[in-house]
Amino acid sequence: MKHIILPILTLGVILTGRADAQTQDPLPSWNETATKAAIIEFVEKVSSDGSPDFVPPEDRIATFDNDGTLWCEQPIYTQLAFAFDRVKALAPEHPEWKTKQPYKAVLDGDLESLKSQGEKGVAEIIAATHAGMTSDEFAKISSDWIATAKHPRFKRPYTECVYQPQLELLAFLRDNGFQTFIVSGGGIEFMRPWTARVYGIAAPQVVGSSIVTEFQMQNGKPVLMRLPKVNFVDDKAGKPVGIGQHIGKRPILAFGNSAGDREMLQYATGGDGARLGLLVYHDDAEREYAYGPAGGLPDSKMGTFPQSLMDEAGKNGWIVVRMKEDWNRAFP
Amino acid sequence: MKHIILPILTLGVILTGRADAQTQDPLPSWNETATKAAIIEFVEKVSSDGSPDFVPPEDRIATFDNDGTLWCEQPIYTQLAFAFDRVKALAPEHPEWKTKQPYKAVLDGDLESLKSQGEKGVAEIIAATHAGMTSDEFAKISSDWIATAKHPRFKRPYTECVYQPQLELLAFLRDNGFQTFIVSGGGIEFMRPWTARVYGIAAPQVVGSSIVTEFQMQNGKPVLMRLPKVNFVDDKAGKPVGIGQHIGKRPILAFGNSAGDREMLQYATGGDGARLGLLVYHDDAEREYAYGPAGGLPDSKMGTFPQSLMDEAGKNGWIVVRMKEDWNRAFP
Repeated sequence: MKHIILPILTLGVILTGRADAQTQDPLPSWNETATKAAIIEFVEKVSSDGSPDFVPPEDRIATFDNDGTLWCEQPIYTQLAFAFDRVKALAPEHPEWKTKQPYKAVLDGDLESLKSQGEKGVAEIIAATHAGMTSDEFAKISSDWIATAKHPRFKRPYTECVYQPQLELLAFLRDNGFQTFIVSGGGIEFMRPWTARVYGIAAPQVVGSSIVTEFQMQNGKPVLMRLPKVNFVDDKAGKPVGIGQHIGKRPILAFGNSAGDREMLQYATGGDGARLGLLVYHDDAEREYAYGPAGGLPDSKMGTFPQSLMDEAGKNGWIVVRMKEDWNRAFP
Repeated sequence: MKHIILPILTLGVILTGRADAQTQDPLPSWNETATKAAIIEFVEKVSSDGSPDFVPPEDRIATFDNDGTLWCEQPIYTQLAFAFDRVKALAPEHPEWKTKQPYKAVLDGDLESLKSQGEKGVAEIIAATHAGMTSDEFAKISSDWIATAKHPRFKRPYTECVYQPQLELLAFLRDNGFQTFIVSGGGIEFMRPWTARVYGIAAPQVVGSSIVTEFQMQNGKPVLMRLPKVNFVDDKAGKPVGIGQHIGKRPILAFGNSAGDREMLQYATGGDGARLGLLVYHDDAEREYAYGPAGGLPDSKMGTFPQSLMDEAGKNGWIVVRMKEDWNRAFP
C-alpha cells in the first residue's frame, strides 16, 4: 500500500502546509529532555480539538521576553551597545562631551565609570541618542546600525545572536495556531524594524518600553516626534500592564529569563486552565554565557536571575530551560 | 468546455477561500457611486502583484474610528449610555448620589444639566463606573451590559447598530491582505470583548483610550486593577500617537467621521505612495441621523463634523462618504 499512501500524505503536507508531526521533529535544536517533552505536550493539549485543555486560537497567546530570552544580552544589552555607538557617532557635533559625564565615560570606553553613575547616566544617554528625531528617522538610524554592527565576542550581527531553539519554538507555536508576541523591557521602536524578518513577529505584536511621541507637522509633513521623556517602562510589574494595553488578553504561555519577567510569568500562569511558564537559565559559558546569581553562577547586571526566581519557578511549576542541557545549539 | 472549467473554478474557490471578484460584488450595500469605484480601485492597485502602487501585505494597514464610523454614535456615545446605566445600577450602594452632582443629573435623566457640568462631570462618572475593578471584572460587566442593552431609537442591541457597508468593507480589505485596526477615542477595554465577534477585529488590533492599570496580587491571584486615572486619550492628535504605540506603522488607509479623526487621516495620507483617507458624513436622518455642522446640518456634541474638516477633505483628496447617497442600507 506504500505507493498509494505516500502520495496521499504528500498531498496532506501540501494542503496543510506542514509536515506530519510524527515524522518531523519541530524542535531539532532542543535535546530530548523532559523540558522538550513538556513543551510539546502543552502545545498539543491546548491546540487539539476535543482535548479537555483545548484553548481556542484567539486565546492562544504566547509572550516572549527579548533580551536573554530570544537573543543574547551579554556582555551588555544590544540597545545599550547601539546607544554607545550613537554617542560616538554624534560626538563630533558635541565637543563638550569629551569632558562631560556620562558621555566622557562612553567615549573613553570606561564602563565602570558609567556603572558608577547609575541609571541616571544611562537615562541621559538614552535621551541624547533616542530622542529629538521622528519615529521614521529613528527606525532608519537603528536599522542601519543593526545591519552592520557586530557582537564583540561572536563577531556576527546581533540579529544572528538569536537563539535557534527559540526560533524553532516560535514557529512551532505559530504552526499550532498560537499568536506570538514580544514583551520586552527594550525599546519598542528599537525592536520593531527587524522582528518580522528575524523572529517572524510583526511590528504590532511587539510590546516594549517607550518614550513619549508627539504628533507634529514638519514642513507640511505629519510626523511623530520622539521627545526625551519616558512614556512607559515595560519591565517587572510593567509587563502585565503592557500586555493588558497591547494584547488585551492574558497569555497562556510566557517565556522569560530574568527577574524582569517574574510578574509576566505570574500573570500568565495565574489564569484558569492550562498554562505554561518558562525561563531560560544561562549556564553555558562555552557556547554563550553563564550568569545568575541563581545556582551559584556569577551575578550579572544584565538579565539577573536571582535565587528567589529559581525558588518561585519550583513552587509555581515554571520550567527552567537549562541552556547547556536542553539546547544542542545556541545560535543559527 | 463548461463542464471542465467549472469544477476547476470551484476548486480555485475552495483553495483560495474566496469567490472570483468579477462575479461577486464585495460591497453590495454600497451604491454604484464614484466613492465605491474609488475604494475598489485603491484596494486593487495596492494589492495587485506588479502594480506600480503595490504595497506588501505587512504594510497594508487600515485604521477605522469606531463611534460614528463603524457604529452609531447618536443620540449619545454607546459608552456613555453604558456609564449612565452603571450609575443607575450602582445607585443603591450610593444613596448620596440622589442629591450629588453629576450623579443626580444622570439619575434624573437630565442630560442638559449634565452637559452644563462639562467634561469634568463626565470624567467623574467614568471614574466612578469604569475604575475600582480588575480588567477581567470590567470585561464581564461591560460584556453583560452590551449583550442586553438596546439602542433607544432602533430598539436593537448596540452591536447591531453597526454599519453593514463597513462590515463589508472590513471583510473586503482583509480578503485583500489588509490588516484592519480600530483606532477609537472610546475605551480600549470597553471595545475589546466584542470587536472580534462583531467586526472580525481581534483584541490586539483595537487601539483606544485607557485608564491606568496596575498589576496586583489579590488573594494570591495576579490581576490588573483599573485605577481612576486617565492613561491615554486616543483622540485628535492622540490617534497618530496611539497608532505609533500599538501598530508601529503608518496606515495606508484611514476611515473616520469627525474632527477627532482629522490627525489620523493627516498622518495616514501624509506618507509616501498610494494612500486613502475616508470620512463618513451622516446626512441620513431617516435611516440613521443627520449631523454636521458641515453642509448646514445640525451641530452635534457627539462626532462633530465641522466645515473646516469638509474643506480639508476637499483639499487633501479625502473621500467624503455620504450615507444617503453612497450606502443602500445602514444596519445589518
